[in-house]
Amino acid sequence: MSSSFGQHLRLSIFGQSHGEGLGVTIDGFPAGMAIDTERLLAEMARRAPGQSALTTARKEPDAPEFLSGVLNGRTTGQPICAVIRNTNQRSRDYGDGVDLVRPGHADYTGHVRYFGFEDWRGGGSFSGRLTAPVVLAGALCSQWLEKQGVRIACHVQQLGSVRDSSFMDADPCADYSHLKAMHLPVLTAGLDAQMEAAAMEARNDADSIGGVLECMITGLPAGLGAPFFDSVESVVSQLMFSVPAVKGIEFGAGFGFASMRGSEANDAFRMQDGKVVTETNHSGGVNGGITNGMPVVFRCVIRPTPSIGKPQQTVSLKSGTEEELVIHGRHDPCILPRAVPVIEAMAAIAVMELWKERAACLT
Amino acid sequence: MSSSFGQHLRLSIFGQSHGEGLGVTIDGFPAGMAIDTERLLAEMARRAPGQSALTTARKEPDAPEFLSGVLNGRTTGQPICAVIRNTNQRSRDYGDGVDLVRPGHADYTGHVRYFGFEDWRGGGSFSGRLTAPVVLAGALCSQWLEKQGVRIACHVQQLGSVRDSSFMDADPCADYSHLKAMHLPVLTAGLDAQMEAAAMEARNDADSIGGVLECMITGLPAGLGAPFFDSVESVVSQLMFSVPAVKGIEFGAGFGFASMRGSEANDAFRMQDGKVVTETNHSGGVNGGITNGMPVVFRCVIRPTPSIGKPQQTVSLKSGTEEELVIHGRHDPCILPRAVPVIEAMAAIAVMELWKERAACLT
Amino acid sequence: MSSSFGQHLRLSIFGQSHGEGLGVTIDGFPAGMAIDTERLLAEMARRAPGQSALTTARKEPDAPEFLSGVLNGRTTGQPICAVIRNTNQRSRDYGDGVDLVRPGHADYTGHVRYFGFEDWRGGGSFSGRLTAPVVLAGALCSQWLEKQGVRIACHVQQLGSVRDSSFMDADPCADYSHLKAMHLPVLTAGLDAQMEAAAMEARNDADSIGGVLECMITGLPAGLGAPFFDSVESVVSQLMFSVPAVKGIEFGAGFGFASMRGSEANDAFRMQDGKVVTETNHSGGVNGGITNGMPVVFRCVIRPTPSIGKPQQTVSLKSGTEEELVIHGRHDPCILPRAVPVIEAMAAIAVMELWKERAACLT
Amino acid sequence: MSSSFGQHLRLSIFGQSHGEGLGVTIDGFPAGMAIDTERLLAEMARRAPGQSALTTARKEPDAPEFLSGVLNGRTTGQPICAVIRNTNQRSRDYGDGVDLVRPGHADYTGHVRYFGFEDWRGGGSFSGRLTAPVVLAGALCSQWLEKQGVRIACHVQQLGSVRDSSFMDADPCADYSHLKAMHLPVLTAGLDAQMEAAAMEARNDADSIGGVLECMITGLPAGLGAPFFDSVESVVSQLMFSVPAVKGIEFGAGFGFASMRGSEANDAFRMQDGKVVTETNHSGGVNGGITNGMPVVFRCVIRPTPSIGKPQQTVSLKSGTEEELVIHGRHDPCILPRAVPVIEAMAAIAVMELWKERAACLT
Repeated sequence: MSSSFGQHLRLSIFGQSHGEGLGVTIDGFPAGMAIDTERLLAEMARRAPGQSALTTARKEPDAPEFLSGVLNGRTTGQPICAVIRNTNQRSRDYGDGVDLVRPGHADYTGHVRYFGFEDWRGGGSFSGRLTAPVVLAGALCSQWLEKQGVRIACHVQQLGSVRDSSFMDADPCADYSHLKAMHLPVLTAGLDAQMEAAAMEARNDADSIGGVLECMITGLPAGLGAPFFDSVESVVSQLMFSVPAVKGIEFGAGFGFASMRGSEANDAFRMQDGKVVTETNHSGGVNGGITNGMPVVFRCVIRPTPSIGKPQQTVSLKSGTEEELVIHGRHDPCILPRAVPVIEAMAAIAVMELWKERAACLT
Repeated sequence: MSSSFGQHLRLSIFGQSHGEGLGVTIDGFPAGMAIDTERLLAEMARRAPGQSALTTARKEPDAPEFLSGVLNGRTTGQPICAVIRNTNQRSRDYGDGVDLVRPGHADYTGHVRYFGFEDWRGGGSFSGRLTAPVVLAGALCSQWLEKQGVRIACHVQQLGSVRDSSFMDADPCADYSHLKAMHLPVLTAGLDAQMEAAAMEARNDADSIGGVLECMITGLPAGLGAPFFDSVESVVSQLMFSVPAVKGIEFGAGFGFASMRGSEANDAFRMQDGKVVTETNHSGGVNGGITNGMPVVFRCVIRPTPSIGKPQQTVSLKSGTEEELVIHGRHDPCILPRAVPVIEAMAAIAVMELWKERAACLT
Repeated sequence: MSSSFGQHLRLSIFGQSHGEGLGVTIDGFPAGMAIDTERLLAEMARRAPGQSALTTARKEPDAPEFLSGVLNGRTTGQPICAVIRNTNQRSRDYGDGVDLVRPGHADYTGHVRYFGFEDWRGGGSFSGRLTAPVVLAGALCSQWLEKQGVRIACHVQQLGSVRDSSFMDADPCADYSHLKAMHLPVLTAGLDAQMEAAAMEARNDADSIGGVLECMITGLPAGLGAPFFDSVESVVSQLMFSVPAVKGIEFGAGFGFASMRGSEANDAFRMQDGKVVTETNHSGGVNGGITNGMPVVFRCVIRPTPSIGKPQQTVSLKSGTEEELVIHGRHDPCILPRAVPVIEAMAAIAVMELWKERAACLT
Repeated sequence: MSSSFGQHLRLSIFGQSHGEGLGVTIDGFPAGMAIDTERLLAEMARRAPGQSALTTARKEPDAPEFLSGVLNGRTTGQPICAVIRNTNQRSRDYGDGVDLVRPGHADYTGHVRYFGFEDWRGGGSFSGRLTAPVVLAGALCSQWLEKQGVRIACHVQQLGSVRDSSFMDADPCADYSHLKAMHLPVLTAGLDAQMEAAAMEARNDADSIGGVLECMITGLPAGLGAPFFDSVESVVSQLMFSVPAVKGIEFGAGFGFASMRGSEANDAFRMQDGKVVTETNHSGGVNGGITNGMPVVFRCVIRPTPSIGKPQQTVSLKSGTEEELVIHGRHDPCILPRAVPVIEAMAAIAVMELWKERAACLT
């Protein structure tokens, strides 16, 4: 099963890059929420291409249509289905069947998986375009979670060799909503220009570049999640690794734990306003798979976009020969700006699932 | 839901550290496999405490009893249940109810999650002891997968500041079975002694130390997994983050992708003996969530054991006051040796689930 | 969760009667099947209204559009999404919000379930119109199963007091494809006219009438299903009770078992052409939850359509008073003809799920 | 998957009739419930054999042991595992491998399903003995649901040709707890003696006899369940068909709907003490898959026990020849008395799952 997630909030995404359309069904979304359509479209616009020189010039009008589950602008509690039509496929760019498989892409693995019957055009099911319905679903969840006091922020913590500071060292009570307005959201003023320069350099080399996104979720109550298979980290990571290009995730001090002593790593408990809090937050807000009320902080590494202009070595599936491949057309030299809202959306979906699971225990 | 995993192979683990017993039910395991009990017990012994100065001296006789699903030494295809009894609970060590919550542990979050009714003794459901049934289930999966040509190897890639080389630079066709016999399995001869010294140093400081485990799965066919929610990385990471102490995971080049260019990161395809292979394996054997036939390589960071001898600051749940806590008794200064078979077991469970999902497509 | 089914074949249906559209996503459908569109539309036409005096005159153009999962007329193995747009909603018939709840309908329970936010128009999520995507999904499954030799037939076994003979007494090897062409499919020639007369009589009384549908699935291998929660009967019944109006189901001798002795009820085994078969088929093709290779036979009772022209007693949700309700407009006096393809579709979906589950065991 | 049920309350049962033991894991059970052990054991005793001449004389000491999830007599919220050991297997009665498959049993289908590796002894996974852990799980759920005001009652509505009156015609507010103390619970005084006579007659003929059980659940709030795949009827029927011997189920008027007009079938709404109720309850408490606050009433048909003393025709799996089979030993001529607590238990499990699903919506 590739396209379904969740036990309490159940998502099913569908679509291929160059098919008729793509979308998402959401089962279990709470009834009665007034949808802020303007903000929903704003989120989707952050993910859409064509925003700057860093991202591909293809123009995808990501206007979703709600086929069900919404009445008079409010969620009804019934299954939501939202569809985004593909209007600009240009499949003439893509030839007749997969032949030269693109390195770093899923052309080859998709071909094996689907026995050669897959819709390969433009990446098919593997296209980053499939993240459009994810952003839509996440934006709905975010709007609901905001009413519960939950906030989700994300910034580019690293792009190539340029590194931003970390939410680990930032004030969790500060307002980070300004990050949403930045093309390359960073905590350190001016660093986005350096990042942009690094990305442009890659672009000028007909190349691409990777980075790290850091996400912080605040306002969570203690008690979400569970030990073992449905730990907060398990649920979040399952979703994050669904995002094409994510190849690693770490929570709190993450890989830094490897060289730490227990006495450094442990977060001492103390009381604050009658509430149990921790002095530090190396655990990233999660102990034993369960939220402890501190901010949940995690970082995802984003591999450089595999679509590059440089010639590459590959094979022909049709002839079984080794060939040189040159990918034409314009592609994102750096996918990070567009990945930010996707990571935020997946975070919101994860929290919603955990929230509903918790609610079932509160009876 | 905390204790259930899988759609095609379904596991349910149960037990608390100091209850009557713990165990696992496994539904969907193939019929007819002769169980190699000796090797099964050997795997469980690798996880058990008391093997060396690095690990706690508590002696847990982890002898599993199969209550169902096995007849004449073979799996029957019916649900397997295996139970490990707790014989050495010593609950007198643990006092009456959680009061001073241990930093880095799940005492506090478990208390919130279970409304104060949880079996807190010895870590309850959060105890590393729960990994005993995981190792058992994984060993069964490994034995079955070996017959299909799949091999799983794991080594300590980092312990404190001591770093081993990587499977990324090793020969995937080599035999790594000797690693299973090493207390601190490493690729570089002699490095285990350095690691042991670092761990002993932490121990002598009444402290603990973390590290990184690297795992490689070879012999996988291309085509396992799926894009999005059931990607190989999603399934593997969901399981790995179920292991207490794991706080990060990366596949292939992992966080190294952040500073790479696409032209470096992409794995060029070529033909080898009529088969499609890649020149490098930065993707860690997975493209678009699906295995490409190359070794699956991933690394997990293991935080330092939170149970340390040094005094720590914490709070009393009963009085709401801030207190100093000293944890008595002997604890593992370094959990890595015992975590190795757990990571291998989770890897085997993940592959088994993916394998069965694939089989359902081959009809 | 209301709208998702299956572990190996995963369906998610969406839509409300008077929303923008409805449809289904199908995850896990086999790759490479050429869709026979003509037969698919023929199945959907059987379910559509307006075929005769027995069924409502509303005209719903149930033309599905495949948004994903199909390329060049073949399934790709990727998630399928098919959408049917609502073009003829006439919501002016339905007023502003639920007030007088219709007896036998879900107006009241839906109001409670969705906290008053539900899309109540025309029955909302509860409308029989939701069975259109079910028929679509079932038709795809049927086409695939036919290639494996599976055949599904259904007839009206009872309508009011008119009773047809049973598949239990019929030749399972005969060809029953002619039933699909009959408006009221029956095994006994001429009985459909009697049934039609009974239905017209109810209609002339501004009333409706119920009945029983009997379904037979032939060509199944022995070994599908499992004891307990995923028994053939459990899977089939879960799906059948998803069909609005179904209030009972029985397999094989069904409720007739109550007055039977074991010596009558047991189906003696014998050999036929080297194959194990049973002399009788009181078990309806299932022993211990698993197919035994004989035809699976079951019957579903269909309650009379609750929408009738006669005045009825009900309450006003708005004022809390008791009121008389008269439902205007034209409604089916007998839903059985339109329910036949729905029952067949659900049967096909059930078998497909069981088939794939079995395939995962055959590795 | 044979042995797992539920999304919100997750059960996994395991065991074979003549293995070491059987049991159940329960994930998601509420924390903090004091278990009434005496009543739990009383429920299990109702299901146990050897209570009267009607049931087999085998003595199974069904004493469950809680391995986890219970502390100081209270549920902890953590996964519960309860084990019942098999102490009286007498596998010497059962010979070496399945050969002559018993008509009406799962010997043949189990052999196909598990490729000949199944634990066939005493029915293996298909044994009615597997209902012991079901009764245990159901008794826990019942105790919890009682605190919410839910009551579950069950009686023998038919045994052979002897018919009791129906809950449909009984006062739903009456106290039916006395039924639990009756060996053959009936609503009509004295009818149990007639039923017993009918069962003894079958026994004296070395035969068995079937019947119908009727179950009523009162005290349910309106709003449990959902349209389509998780309708109340879908959830209940999935569980009921897990009970060996159940071959049919009907809700409310059930198969009686077939000969009813809509005007008879519809349950008129009226107000009672400011609450919406229905005048009649033909719908059996469920509209559109959702509870309407009226009692949920359903009937299950129980086929006559297939184990009978009369000679039967069957085949030898080993030689492929047709043979006569005589089943020795003592068996229940009528399983209905022992099936009553199983049906009640399954009903409690169903309601618990629906209750928790509902709770997740109430956030």
